[in-house]
Amino acid sequence: MHAIGVDIGGTKIAAGVVDEDGNILAQTRRVTEPDDAGSIDKAIGEIYAELSSSYEVGSIGLAAAGFVSSDRSGVLFAPNLAWRNYPLDERVGALVGDDVRIVVENDANAAGWAEFRFGVGRDVDDMLMLTVGTGLGGALVIGGKLVRGAWGVAAEVGHMRVVPGGHYCGCGHEGCWEQYASGSALVRDAQSALITQPERAARLLELVGGDVDQLTGPDVTQAAQEGDVLAIELLANLGRWIGEGSASVAALIDPELIVIGGGVGAAGDLLLAPVRNAFAEQLSARGYRPEARIELAAMGNDAGIVGAADLSRV
Amino acid sequence: MHAIGVDIGGTKIAAGVVDEDGNILAQTRRVTEPDDAGSIDKAIGEIYAELSSSYEVGSIGLAAAGFVSSDRSGVLFAPNLAWRNYPLDERVGALVGDDVRIVVENDANAAGWAEFRFGVGRDVDDMLMLTVGTGLGGALVIGGKLVRGAWGVAAEVGHMRVVPGGHYCGCGHEGCWEQYASGSALVRDAQSALITQPERAARLLELVGGDVDQLTGPDVTQAAQEGDVLAIELLANLGRWIGEGSASVAALIDPELIVIGGGVGAAGDLLLAPVRNAFAEQLSARGYRPEARIELAAMGNDAGIVGAADLSRV
Amino acid sequence: MHAIGVDIGGTKIAAGVVDEDGNILAQTRRVTEPDDAGSIDKAIGEIYAELSSSYEVGSIGLAAAGFVSSDRSGVLFAPNLAWRNYPLDERVGALVGDDVRIVVENDANAAGWAEFRFGVGRDVDDMLMLTVGTGLGGALVIGGKLVRGAWGVAAEVGHMRVVPGGHYCGCGHEGCWEQYASGSALVRDAQSALITQPERAARLLELVGGDVDQLTGPDVTQAAQEGDVLAIELLANLGRWIGEGSASVAALIDPELIVIGGGVGAAGDLLLAPVRNAFAEQLSARGYRPEARIELAAMGNDAGIVGAADLSRV
Amino acid sequence: MHAIGVDIGGTKIAAGVVDEDGNILAQTRRVTEPDDAGSIDKAIGEIYAELSSSYEVGSIGLAAAGFVSSDRSGVLFAPNLAWRNYPLDERVGALVGDDVRIVVENDANAAGWAEFRFGVGRDVDDMLMLTVGTGLGGALVIGGKLVRGAWGVAAEVGHMRVVPGGHYCGCGHEGCWEQYASGSALVRDAQSALITQPERAARLLELVGGDVDQLTGPDVTQAAQEGDVLAIELLANLGRWIGEGSASVAALIDPELIVIGGGVGAAGDLLLAPVRNAFAEQLSARGYRPEARIELAAMGNDAGIVGAADLSRV
Repeated sequence: MHAIGVDIGGTKIAAGVVDEDGNILAQTRRVTEPDDAGSIDKAIGEIYAELSSSYEVGSIGLAAAGFVSSDRSGVLFAPNLAWRNYPLDERVGALVGDDVRIVVENDANAAGWAEFRFGVGRDVDDMLMLTVGTGLGGALVIGGKLVRGAWGVAAEVGHMRVVPGGHYCGCGHEGCWEQYASGSALVRDAQSALITQPERAARLLELVGGDVDQLTGPDVTQAAQEGDVLAIELLANLGRWIGEGSASVAALIDPELIVIGGGVGAAGDLLLAPVRNAFAEQLSARGYRPEARIELAAMGNDAGIVGAADLSRV
Repeated sequence: MHAIGVDIGGTKIAAGVVDEDGNILAQTRRVTEPDDAGSIDKAIGEIYAELSSSYEVGSIGLAAAGFVSSDRSGVLFAPNLAWRNYPLDERVGALVGDDVRIVVENDANAAGWAEFRFGVGRDVDDMLMLTVGTGLGGALVIGGKLVRGAWGVAAEVGHMRVVPGGHYCGCGHEGCWEQYASGSALVRDAQSALITQPERAARLLELVGGDVDQLTGPDVTQAAQEGDVLAIELLANLGRWIGEGSASVAALIDPELIVIGGGVGAAGDLLLAPVRNAFAEQLSARGYRPEARIELAAMGNDAGIVGAADLSRV
Repeated sequence: MHAIGVDIGGTKIAAGVVDEDGNILAQTRRVTEPDDAGSIDKAIGEIYAELSSSYEVGSIGLAAAGFVSSDRSGVLFAPNLAWRNYPLDERVGALVGDDVRIVVENDANAAGWAEFRFGVGRDVDDMLMLTVGTGLGGALVIGGKLVRGAWGVAAEVGHMRVVPGGHYCGCGHEGCWEQYASGSALVRDAQSALITQPERAARLLELVGGDVDQLTGPDVTQAAQEGDVLAIELLANLGRWIGEGSASVAALIDPELIVIGGGVGAAGDLLLAPVRNAFAEQLSARGYRPEARIELAAMGNDAGIVGAADLSRV
Repeated sequence: MHAIGVDIGGTKIAAGVVDEDGNILAQTRRVTEPDDAGSIDKAIGEIYAELSSSYEVGSIGLAAAGFVSSDRSGVLFAPNLAWRNYPLDERVGALVGDDVRIVVENDANAAGWAEFRFGVGRDVDDMLMLTVGTGLGGALVIGGKLVRGAWGVAAEVGHMRVVPGGHYCGCGHEGCWEQYASGSALVRDAQSALITQPERAARLLELVGGDVDQLTGPDVTQAAQEGDVLAIELLANLGRWIGEGSASVAALIDPELIVIGGGVGAAGDLLLAPVRNAFAEQLSARGYRPEARIELAAMGNDAGIVGAADLSRV
């Protein structure tokens, strides 16, 4: 049976009809107002009406950044949306009718599940997905099942502490992994280098016209791909933190595969090689165990749609 | 059906007949030679002969410290025994016959499973067990299943890194959790305090007759229970590391219960209160989620026997 | 001979006539425009005219936050003022005439010197002054002489690194001491506690009317003096960082006295006791050496004026 | 006037007659018994008799590892010798007579002073010497004067803390700089790499015949000079810790020159380049100040003799 997957962002919604093999048969989008929960409900209703007119659909999977209730019916808290203990399935259900099943999922879980089912993880049973973006999100599959945790908030990998007394995190704690292993950390470190090492940062400064605040992750990637030594170091440092933290996770759950998603994947081997080296050097009991493979995500930006749709069937 | 659980230590073996409710119906012991793998096989054979003469037994669970093969047939590596890629089930099977099923498990996993099935975790689905002894071992239960990992070496919690550039660990890495959250760490820190703060350490020095090298964990616990300020601080510091590391694990797997086992449990609330405080202060997204309970283990030293027996049935 | 001391802040200037015993005989003030270097020169000229009309003055000491040239003639860089390689003695000299000596000093050095000559350090030869304010400044006296360094930028204690990978500092580096041992760090940690531990922070929340952003260091001190447990912990944590870092400095220069200045001194023993404990616990070779005393500064807000004046005589 | 410099080691004494330009005119040696303080006194007496028979000598400088009393008359504590509050000048004076001045100095101070007066530091006024050997020793010259500290134990740089919760140090504390910036740290990290990265460590393993415990610092240097990637990384890591710690010291005392002594200097630029890079990257206020030069020591093993002799004149 087909399912609709909906990826609910801060200002827009992307959705698609997904078949049982993870193919997207049709897609649509809506712009929404993050402060107006009703506008999101309404947009989802319209999306359902549009897509279900051409396809028979048995369920809808709704993916959003936030804490999802453990029964997958609603959202406890979403940092970028107006939801606080919001019964999303009820509200959307009132608009789309009772004969379609509605399931809410965390967006990183949805993307990870898509990789597990149809992407780079389709041949493994135990997988860790890391989504390296503004923050560091994740998803965990153990024994072929998505790990949601006792209260639905598992795989908040970005808030594992990796440095006692380390960088402050928006969550109120110090030294969270996402302060070292995220696109934001890459940009912050690059901006710092522009100030403290201007001569080495000549190419990066040139790319941003001398305006440090304009620097983005893609600038670093571009410079690195041109061979710029500082940019290569910055990506290697990001990779080191991803790899070393992954070794700690591996000590706990012993995955077969670790998938790196998010925009930084564009750097390819300039990121991936340092990740793998750091992981191998830091891995506990190395030599007495096979080592997890580390690969880039394969599903691209549609992973949230595909994963949400697929999870709504289960 | 009854099962035999066997807890294989470095120099002795303890075993028992266990019923389906986790009760031990009969027990026996053997002294063994750690460097002689054959002596261990033989002792297990004798134990089986002895215990199966009075009880009908369907399976044997063998628990040992080491890396167990993912099919649970043998041991890849055991730090304190002569096993290297040792086919334990085959060797023991040759002695006990084909009609009894033999399953090998990691000892920390066995103890954790006993707590999950019959001890403090019997009402939960998602549980982390921490065994705070010479090192820091663990077991992980997710969705009611023991997590063994892709290659059988999951729950090596003691080798998650908590301090970059931190204390050297016997595993070859720096900053492993067990260097901060173990009985050995407690003793090491206490011995350091005897040297650097002798006046505050008066009671501890008295307990060891002035011989710093004689200091043990129970000495610290005794002094703390008498009200000694330094000993209370040392336990609180141990508790803080246990609690803060647990918060990182909780960010990843969101357990309902965290169980603290091992000898340090004798300190009771002098350890448990700091663990809980540190966990709560460090927990990600606190206030938006229920918090895991943290409790002392309830099964005592027989947990390995009971857990190994029970796991041999599954 | 009398000297004039001038303490040049971001928006105002305070000055006084100081005798050879460190007494202030007369004082005056001016409001200035930080972006207009000429307005500062002019204000100093007016101050000289005013104060020298009643007192015979042989020299002027000018203290400001910034990097002072090693010949003490000008300012290389001042973060809060318009000075960049600014020849302050020449510009002021043009206004006040040739018969008065003009000396430029770093403001933390001036305050430390005042404590050394006339305050809590008047009986020692080797002293470290820490000024715990928005940042962490310092002054160093060795063998009775102010240490300026090879290029005039010694005693930048706030930028010693105490945590690799630690909090970002405005200077572009990570883990600088002032990110842990300053009034700003106290406020940051307190604000974090308001968010992550609201129930323990009840009194602090009450003091700021529930507005986390309104919290100041004096709020924490007030709550601590009332007995609030969280506020006492926050001050103790600040004190711990001050004391532990001081032990590292003591390993290098072995001072007889460490002086704690800045607004946090208002907390008295609630700060000082943890500083002393942490220093003693962390001190290298304790037991084989006398230990530096740690005392609060005695000179108050006029230390900059008195120290600048006195240093202009040497 | 000539002076005798005596370098007192754990099992042997090296001495020489030194002229005012730092030239050694004659040398001699004695083997001693570290547990017998009298044997050391006697050997020094013999040395004086031997050397003073051919040269007119006005003073004797005695250098030893340990805490020297602030009046330079004796030794408070020496880790490797039988001295505890030992009045060395009195004991030696009884053997050599009253007409020769006897001065006791810390050995690292003596070596640093030799570099300052006659070696790589002869043109500067402010200098930090780091002696990177089994541990990390140092000497500090400010304004042309040796900094001894209030109680004679300044420049214990090896016990500045660089990693909170870091490696245990023999001094009883955690994270001391010498646990990261010493020959011992290099060997420890190299041995760890042999175990955790055997394939990358092939050349190092070959050099020690497969026996990890045989590995020494010179093995690492040799492999690095042959181009071995792991060995180069190990030296670079050592250099990074030396350079980053030096930046913290520079924030405090702003030296013109930092001198690297000890056996690791044999690695030349393989060590020095990473030291300089790390120092520059970590230096506070870089760009607003000249940067300290970092150079290898020039005086070799005789620095202790030369420095002790020269300091005995002052």
